[in-house]
Amino acid sequence: MFLHQTRLEKEENPQEASARSHLPRAFPATSGKQQQTICSLLQIRTGLVLVRNPHLDLMEEDVLYHLDLGTKTHNLPAMFGDIKFVCVGGSPNRMRAFAQFMRRELGLAGAGEDVADICAGSDRYAMYRAGPVLSISHGMGIPSISIMLHELIKLLHHAKCRDVTIIRIGTSGGLGIEAGSVVITDTAVDSSFRPRFEQVVLDDVVVRSTELDKDLAEELLTCSRDIPDFPTLIGHTMCTYDFYEGQGRLDGALCSFSSEKKLEYLRRAYEAGVRNIEMESTAFAALCGLCGLKAAVVCVALLDRLQGDQIRASHEVLWEYQQRPQRLIAAFIRKRLGLVRTD
Amino acid sequence: MFLHQTRLEKEENPQEASARSHLPRAFPATSGKQQQTICSLLQIRTGLVLVRNPHLDLMEEDVLYHLDLGTKTHNLPAMFGDIKFVCVGGSPNRMRAFAQFMRRELGLAGAGEDVADICAGSDRYAMYRAGPVLSISHGMGIPSISIMLHELIKLLHHAKCRDVTIIRIGTSGGLGIEAGSVVITDTAVDSSFRPRFEQVVLDDVVVRSTELDKDLAEELLTCSRDIPDFPTLIGHTMCTYDFYEGQGRLDGALCSFSSEKKLEYLRRAYEAGVRNIEMESTAFAALCGLCGLKAAVVCVALLDRLQGDQIRASHEVLWEYQQRPQRLIAAFIRKRLGLVRTD
Repeated sequence: MFLHQTRLEKEENPQEASARSHLPRAFPATSGKQQQTICSLLQIRTGLVLVRNPHLDLMEEDVLYHLDLGTKTHNLPAMFGDIKFVCVGGSPNRMRAFAQFMRRELGLAGAGEDVADICAGSDRYAMYRAGPVLSISHGMGIPSISIMLHELIKLLHHAKCRDVTIIRIGTSGGLGIEAGSVVITDTAVDSSFRPRFEQVVLDDVVVRSTELDKDLAEELLTCSRDIPDFPTLIGHTMCTYDFYEGQGRLDGALCSFSSEKKLEYLRRAYEAGVRNIEMESTAFAALCGLCGLKAAVVCVALLDRLQGDQIRASHEVLWEYQQRPQRLIAAFIRKRLGLVRTD
Repeated sequence: MFLHQTRLEKEENPQEASARSHLPRAFPATSGKQQQTICSLLQIRTGLVLVRNPHLDLMEEDVLYHLDLGTKTHNLPAMFGDIKFVCVGGSPNRMRAFAQFMRRELGLAGAGEDVADICAGSDRYAMYRAGPVLSISHGMGIPSISIMLHELIKLLHHAKCRDVTIIRIGTSGGLGIEAGSVVITDTAVDSSFRPRFEQVVLDDVVVRSTELDKDLAEELLTCSRDIPDFPTLIGHTMCTYDFYEGQGRLDGALCSFSSEKKLEYLRRAYEAGVRNIEMESTAFAALCGLCGLKAAVVCVALLDRLQGDQIRASHEVLWEYQQRPQRLIAAFIRKRLGLVRTD
């Protein structure tokens, strides 16, 4: 039986416990700057993943339903305690391929073998590991990634993971950039280009920050300079709730606007600094930020939305595009782990 | 090459063409009652699935990217023209199991064999067929089901399907009802219990109706009377963007409210007529309604949210619960097809 409070408090030194005692038991719905500062300070000191939910203390067992894992059924610290990097992406096949790729990149024994899906008992998400790297699929859209992140953050917390970096490696539509370009997000913005995420809590709306870790984005950009065969840039990423009408596509089952209106909207987005469009980044930035995880979003653009709506490139071209963020993240992880390429 | 307009107009008789000519080429963002009436009339006359997008007329090819199907690469009328029932649900495994179950229920040749995933080239969704029944997964949440529905509706349109009934068979959290109960939705409501779906179109918000087909709901309730081993009822279904904070769960990575506040919210929902909570029904009702598809939502409740938050039932119990909507829909389809059970 894991008791959240007991386990966490045992690990804290007096200063940490003191800093923690400043955290409200039930923090106000709109999280203020002060709380974020305390949260960040605590995170810097301990490197632990923060859950911000006093009720978890009272639970005898935590069933992570959509991951098919739990605190009574699995020894989470033994299974995940050494995880340092978590990479998430929409497609389960892509995240399996990434885990296999990382095993080769890290020179792990059995690198050629297939990787096992840790969440095989659920078909909602797929999870694989390669040494200190966890690779998880999150499906499409904010609600889908949000369920996964709540359970993943609790998993990292229960497993007492420290100093975890989390990166979304995804696909997106580009804006005024060449197809195949990789965009590192500095700020995730909503469909009105605002750096905010609106979360419904009961029937109230709470506004959350979508800022991502600037140092991490710069570190990733530096890594990209060693991979000259595709362009990588830093820009804003627009996150929408819909792929068709919400992203100004003319090719959905419904479309009520003209080509001119669409282009006018996309050009306004470009002028606001948006370089790509996807469907998860604001919720990802908000949730990871509140839980003290250093987070980045790195997406390849499958097309330039100023040129069209339909994704028409061949499977082979798209597959190679999708490997670009993976190659960048592999280079970053190798660098962080002090591994030098010998091949 | 399929040209949307040519194909549709060829099939229309003069009255139908006349009715169609009243449909605005680009309908206003907020669809009025008058348009819906015209749309419904046309639907009744032809039984065709309506796409409401004038731009599709101009496209030489339509790539249904997330389904890995297209008008140039696949003969959609030959593949899907005889489809009369479309069943959608979150989990790919569950939708495969449903297709296998339907093959047995319909006495189809090779009923014991595995079914092939028609969308095998994409891991975003899975699609299976059993005679006139199509079974498709949609992932979790409104954005995920919305992408699938846009492409499915275009598929049904390109395939010239007629008189299609679409049913979401899903899982949900119950409200004041026994775990394992099946809820047939009369109206899908948002987190403020309003029968509406807000769709962002470019950066405007358009409000859409979430009404479902009342006759179909009654027909399903009548069918349920022949299956006495689980309770079935009609009620409102609340649709949220989030599983944890948005549904008042106390067991997410974040929770800022008390158990009392949660129960007060859920009780208000119950008083407003809500009997279960899930994450797709408002978008499903709005999109299907606008495209003239007769639609129903039939979900089993995995737990009673007034009693708790965590889904703790065993895999076996949950699996049996998930078969209940499938059994009800199988009975409905058999009845519609005039098949009498002989076993």
